[in-house]
Amino acid sequence: MGASKAEITAFLAREFQRTQAKCEIGEVSDRSATIIYHTDHNDLRPGGTVSGPTLMLVADVALYVAILGTAGLIPLAVTTSMTLNFLRKPAGDREVIGDCRLMKVGKTLVVGEVWLYSKGIDDPVAHAVGTYAIPAQ
Amino acid sequence: MGASKAEITAFLAREFQRTQAKCEIGEVSDRSATIIYHTDHNDLRPGGTVSGPTLMLVADVALYVAILGTAGLIPLAVTTSMTLNFLRKPAGDREVIGDCRLMKVGKTLVVGEVWLYSKGIDDPVAHAVGTYAIPAQ
Amino acid sequence: MGASKAEITAFLAREFQRTQAKCEIGEVSDRSATIIYHTDHNDLRPGGTVSGPTLMLVADVALYVAILGTAGLIPLAVTTSMTLNFLRKPAGDREVIGDCRLMKVGKTLVVGEVWLYSKGIDDPVAHAVGTYAIPAQ
Amino acid sequence: MGASKAEITAFLAREFQRTQAKCEIGEVSDRSATIIYHTDHNDLRPGGTVSGPTLMLVADVALYVAILGTAGLIPLAVTTSMTLNFLRKPAGDREVIGDCRLMKVGKTLVVGEVWLYSKGIDDPVAHAVGTYAIPAQ
Repeated sequence: MGASKAEITAFLAREFQRTQAKCEIGEVSDRSATIIYHTDHNDLRPGGTVSGPTLMLVADVALYVAILGTAGLIPLAVTTSMTLNFLRKPAGDREVIGDCRLMKVGKTLVVGEVWLYSKGIDDPVAHAVGTYAIPAQ
Repeated sequence: MGASKAEITAFLAREFQRTQAKCEIGEVSDRSATIIYHTDHNDLRPGGTVSGPTLMLVADVALYVAILGTAGLIPLAVTTSMTLNFLRKPAGDREVIGDCRLMKVGKTLVVGEVWLYSKGIDDPVAHAVGTYAIPAQ
Repeated sequence: MGASKAEITAFLAREFQRTQAKCEIGEVSDRSATIIYHTDHNDLRPGGTVSGPTLMLVADVALYVAILGTAGLIPLAVTTSMTLNFLRKPAGDREVIGDCRLMKVGKTLVVGEVWLYSKGIDDPVAHAVGTYAIPAQ
Repeated sequence: MGASKAEITAFLAREFQRTQAKCEIGEVSDRSATIIYHTDHNDLRPGGTVSGPTLMLVADVALYVAILGTAGLIPLAVTTSMTLNFLRKPAGDREVIGDCRLMKVGKTLVVGEVWLYSKGIDDPVAHAVGTYAIPAQ
């Protein structure tokens, strides 16, 4: 059974204090989640764009939140792979939105995709596909 | 013509002040580079391991430094894709080593792989393959 | 300007006789294409499932057709990368459907995703993200 | 315990008759394998080059053979993901060589990389990273 937005927010606050401060859960439901990431100067690259590793962080959190929303509060799920394609320069002065949809929820592997956006701009800035391993229960 | 280690260090210090503080260039030569990344508490995840986005950052910098060492100081090269496979938990109390070797240096695309290690431990913690687009000169 | 379905079908028949025999274009429009692939015994694996390389072939053709439908008949576009995630066993006795949507159409690089299905079954069997390089004109 | 070259050859001949006819095992040992693929006109693309899906097939077989050589004859291992980067045009009149090295052999997941070559030419034509899921025993 999946966890609620309030349960996941409390769980992340406990487990990932630092990331949590910048990552807000927009929505979470069975097999999907939306993350709003509040960029600051630590996320920027020359030219006022958002760094690739920051985009990966948002994709990773969006996937993790979608998994928690689907399968419940699993602390030991770990990322096993991620493929990112960078499509357009993100705007450094806007929040990053990560929209995740799970493709497969297996017993040991979960696969999902994440579209990344600069808030308020239609064209995506990046796309990610990631895999999490779920520990045997 | 490729840039030297001193030239690249000065270039990164100018362009990427913040990252540079934690990323040291171990070696750089034609088509390869080694990066030593000094982890701190900002890079850690619960369980004392290094976060995935930090590993991606090291892979990205290693690729970029190998490109600068091969093709010279190109400020506008941008990452277009990256695939990471996470193999083992990195030790949070060790530096991360990124060993990059370029596979292909084309006119518009450069492809390389990066093996990531916890310093002093033989088995790699992750593997990355990334692509940079080189702007037309 | 993009090419029409009839133009692309004729072009593929000329250039890729063999593949074309098994690949039918369902739809093609600006930035998207659907391919119907007629599997035969050469595509099967033990257990009556469709082989991974056959799925890659369908993904590759779907991407190529979407590019031709968007940018016109470019014979020299070449695949530079592809990432596939295999989600469920495809049914060996059904056609494979490849649904492609382009994410980015740049001057030198095109990136798209392809969802692969066993015809008539809702859950996708695989997902692909691929990149084509477009030669300078 | 890993299987020998003769055991794996017999196993593949039984399970994958068709592929086996074109795939010869060069070497197999703990965590590595080399495959020699005999291309024919079915593998070619316009311009006399080898198709991407053929390269994926060679990568997939090389990974599978390395797994069998490491963990024994596991018929139910399945590919869960593969990322290919195409580096240079393969020569259509040469065999394709696939050199696989496993990066991680876990209880449920195996990850490996494969370098693909046109036989007798030093520069690789493609690079693949793939993951197999190993069924619980």
